[in-house]
Amino acid sequence: MSELVTPHVALGGIKTAYVMPNLLPPITSTEQAMSYKKDLQKLAPETEFLMTLYLHENMLEEIEVQENSSSAKVLRGVHEIRKASKAGVRGIKSYPRGVTTHSSTGIESYEPYYPVFKALEEEGMVLNLHGEVPSDDKENISVLNAEKHFLKHLRKLAADFPKLKIVLEHATTKEAVDCVKSLGDNVGCTITPHHLVLTIDAVPSQPFHFCKPIAKEPVDRRALLDVVASGHPRFFLGSDSAPHPIKSKVPKLPDTSVKSDSKYGDVEGDGPQPCAAGVYTSPVLLPLVAYILEKAGALDKLESFVSTNGRAFYGVPVEKNDRPVTLQRVKGKKVPAFYKGQQEGVDIVPFLAGEELGWEIVV
Amino acid sequence: MSELVTPHVALGGIKTAYVMPNLLPPITSTEQAMSYKKDLQKLAPETEFLMTLYLHENMLEEIEVQENSSSAKVLRGVHEIRKASKAGVRGIKSYPRGVTTHSSTGIESYEPYYPVFKALEEEGMVLNLHGEVPSDDKENISVLNAEKHFLKHLRKLAADFPKLKIVLEHATTKEAVDCVKSLGDNVGCTITPHHLVLTIDAVPSQPFHFCKPIAKEPVDRRALLDVVASGHPRFFLGSDSAPHPIKSKVPKLPDTSVKSDSKYGDVEGDGPQPCAAGVYTSPVLLPLVAYILEKAGALDKLESFVSTNGRAFYGVPVEKNDRPVTLQRVKGKKVPAFYKGQQEGVDIVPFLAGEELGWEIVV
Repeated sequence: MSELVTPHVALGGIKTAYVMPNLLPPITSTEQAMSYKKDLQKLAPETEFLMTLYLHENMLEEIEVQENSSSAKVLRGVHEIRKASKAGVRGIKSYPRGVTTHSSTGIESYEPYYPVFKALEEEGMVLNLHGEVPSDDKENISVLNAEKHFLKHLRKLAADFPKLKIVLEHATTKEAVDCVKSLGDNVGCTITPHHLVLTIDAVPSQPFHFCKPIAKEPVDRRALLDVVASGHPRFFLGSDSAPHPIKSKVPKLPDTSVKSDSKYGDVEGDGPQPCAAGVYTSPVLLPLVAYILEKAGALDKLESFVSTNGRAFYGVPVEKNDRPVTLQRVKGKKVPAFYKGQQEGVDIVPFLAGEELGWEIVV
Repeated sequence: MSELVTPHVALGGIKTAYVMPNLLPPITSTEQAMSYKKDLQKLAPETEFLMTLYLHENMLEEIEVQENSSSAKVLRGVHEIRKASKAGVRGIKSYPRGVTTHSSTGIESYEPYYPVFKALEEEGMVLNLHGEVPSDDKENISVLNAEKHFLKHLRKLAADFPKLKIVLEHATTKEAVDCVKSLGDNVGCTITPHHLVLTIDAVPSQPFHFCKPIAKEPVDRRALLDVVASGHPRFFLGSDSAPHPIKSKVPKLPDTSVKSDSKYGDVEGDGPQPCAAGVYTSPVLLPLVAYILEKAGALDKLESFVSTNGRAFYGVPVEKNDRPVTLQRVKGKKVPAFYKGQQEGVDIVPFLAGEELGWEIVV
């Protein structure tokens, strides 16, 4: 999978990628992050990979650290952040437990991690938040309002750590946009291309449109488009591009070649498994965003949205010898139906497969 | 498909089925309804089929009707209702245009049909409503609030035709339950088994849980369960059981056996098509409802919910020689993985495939 998708970052027009840590097992140590970075760099030498750690409950364990000839007790997370910062790791991502892909080891509340956040703040690293709370039937918390319920945590974190760079990732609601706007310059917000296209209407009928957070109502999509069109400097592209093999994006189906002995046609067996959450946009990312912004009358905000706003927030300026990316109009070119991996079962359907975007990258 | 599913009605414990008219082409004439009934009766002689017509825009055409030696102009719909009533057709179903399966010929507003509804009222027939308005980005109407927006139409129809029997079909929201409760004895409401089980959380990841209206929030499911548990006489089972072949319940996938010439793995072709809306429950209907009501602590409401409430509303009493249905507990019996049709491509995955319900019908 990595062999197929890692070169797609550059193909999509992206020089610098901020790499999420929700692998199996999650990336919780500097060593893992560096080893992962090395693997990625080998597959795509032209891409700059900024690495992150996974905010994990094991970071709350006290460990004994030897320094000079004395030893001190410290939270594993604090120790790891110091180390990670030295190694160039740029941030840490928080996944609420059970909310999205590989988040079974995610966190349940934020206060216990305050020493870790303090260390992040001191090191100038970034806290990236998957901004949803877990669903809860009794509290009427569902995938529809999980982001709105999260915003109180965002407000509190922003107030408690005014110098910590915090990013609300892949915002999907008007409330999230309004909340981020109301907060200080330390809080940024990413928006995915697919949340600028989809509303909830397009999700239940199409598992390839299923991602977390799920797309919401038209008024929410409008708020996302409006804030991008406004050029607000703290809102920038975060693709959240998630490569899942086709077989995990559709329910596993029963073998219908078996015969039924029953006059009613019934055949025993397991029911269909649920599909994985995630939308894949990497290989067409810049043409896709150009297509979206042009439709929204905001093509003039393309550069700030995909590049300069995020770079400014992260403090990762364009380098002198960075080659600029140029897009040109194109007719008849369609988003591929799928991307074929070298090995069987590693095929990925991209977002808007088969559709024309009208833009391509000049190579 | 009919051969496979029609006998499933009796298998699920149901004697009397109220048959929806949204076929392709839709059932808009008495002749079609009677011919369809004959086909169904042949496939399942033990089942009683109550037929309906599809409220269609062609019912607004004026036609000339010969009566004795004079001729009169009348709406096709009014004429058809008189004829249908004589033939024993029980009701007419309204589908808002484009909202659900085969509703492209559905209606856009209700007032033009008032003469048809007047005829229905006079004939003692029933108006069955798919209670959603079409989605509209500008008005922020989506699959989430389409039912709430419909309720104003329900209130108006109930007020304008106080003697017309009206059924709000497959209600999914607390607002719909509250609305029906507040209306008069002429307004009933059906609830599906799947809407008593699912919330929106279970829908985007599983196309076999996709139906229209889509399942909503926990508070909505709670309202549905509560009104069933209360034994309210105007709320009764409507399965809305929709048999779709497996291939139309999952996105059509690209042929991944083709090779890619590109180093990026891209393969041209069409994108995945959306899935059909519908959940299939017929062959396990009564065990399924028993399972749900027992979990909700409302097993004592089973008979009223699945039988007597609906029969009383429709005026279709149990007949003297009707065999009662008995359920018994069972361990280890699972809902089939699928039902296999005689012909290829006619296989259907039922709701809760592979799961134990704990109840079976005594045969």
